Amino acid sequence: MEENRQGLLIVLSGPSGAGKGTLCKELMHNLPTLQYSVSATTRDPRPGETEGKDYFFVSREKFTELIRQNQLLEHAEFCGNFYGTPQAPVQHAITQGKDVILEIEIRGAEQIRRKFPQAVFIFIVPPSLEELRARITKRGTETEEKIRQRLDKASDELHYVSEYDYVVVNDQVETAVEKLKAIITAEKCKVKRRLVQF
Amino acid sequence: MEENRQGLLIVLSGPSGAGKGTLCKELMHNLPTLQYSVSATTRDPRPGETEGKDYFFVSREKFTELIRQNQLLEHAEFCGNFYGTPQAPVQHAITQGKDVILEIEIRGAEQIRRKFPQAVFIFIVPPSLEELRARITKRGTETEEKIRQRLDKASDELHYVSEYDYVVVNDQVETAVEKLKAIITAEKCKVKRRLVQF
Repeated sequence: MEENRQGLLIVLSGPSGAGKGTLCKELMHNLPTLQYSVSATTRDPRPGETEGKDYFFVSREKFTELIRQNQLLEHAEFCGNFYGTPQAPVQHAITQGKDVILEIEIRGAEQIRRKFPQAVFIFIVPPSLEELRARITKRGTETEEKIRQRLDKASDELHYVSEYDYVVVNDQVETAVEKLKAIITAEKCKVKRRLVQF
Repeated sequence: MEENRQGLLIVLSGPSGAGKGTLCKELMHNLPTLQYSVSATTRDPRPGETEGKDYFFVSREKFTELIRQNQLLEHAEFCGNFYGTPQAPVQHAITQGKDVILEIEIRGAEQIRRKFPQAVFIFIVPPSLEELRARITKRGTETEEKIRQRLDKASDELHYVSEYDYVVVNDQVETAVEKLKAIITAEKCKVKRRLVQF
């Protein structure tokens, strides 16, 4: 049987503090063929950051042009800088049969869902709000007020789970990564994703 | 997060000769918590067969009553005997949070799809028709004419793949079993299968 060689776009999202960054890194370590989607940004490179690996560093004018030309799968502004996901590299990789992974905030995931509904949307959640509080508190970098705000935000964000295909509880990194790997394997077996030809 | 404790009904089907029986056994060996759905039949027990383990052996009258009372997920007649899948044990196991596996012919799977659309439908296929021919020929028990008939039938049956959720190519048993396990893990992560509660 001929397999469909189209790659998957895997979108990891979820409330902040759920640990999606760690899972993404660990998953890529486990599946070296996964291609990480590099974001474009208008912010300046930090020491050690490499163009095309960490980010595509572009001017504000260039970024505005990318938006206008509909070349971004999603974009957002944080602290006065723009961040976005260029569509062309993602599309190119997928057409070549490569799987692409994207770790992104909930709002960005919503934009991608509209432009690329065939992506696999996975919502990462902490085991509980208590655990999330413990994780944030442990960092020791935030005031009680900030912690409360972050917990409120996370609590709100949890409601977005219903818009996702899968939910993975990040209780233990290894277990969660195994689930992510299983989801990717299963998605590749989906009939609707394959050109079945004998 | 509270998980939904409802079990899955996993339906393995596909053309005869694809090796779904072998995969089913191997999968159950790998996942001992999987519960095998025991069929009811009107045929006589063979030496070594145990009531309630291999089959539920019932009279023709009892079987007709089960059909009339809508207590079978599917049923069919082969060589003058009835075979069917009792709904109650499947429903009971699933409500208890146990996953149930069912290995069944394509026609039976169609009946189950109508009665139990929330089941996970997996289509097992041989790597190619050439390989299927090799497997059938290797058994050495069939005439050239019979082999041709079986291949024609399998070739027709392959078209049913489009009605399934997943397709797994049975090229190597270990690889195929890994895919089946991944599908089960992924299905348990599906948002629509979970009562998400924080």
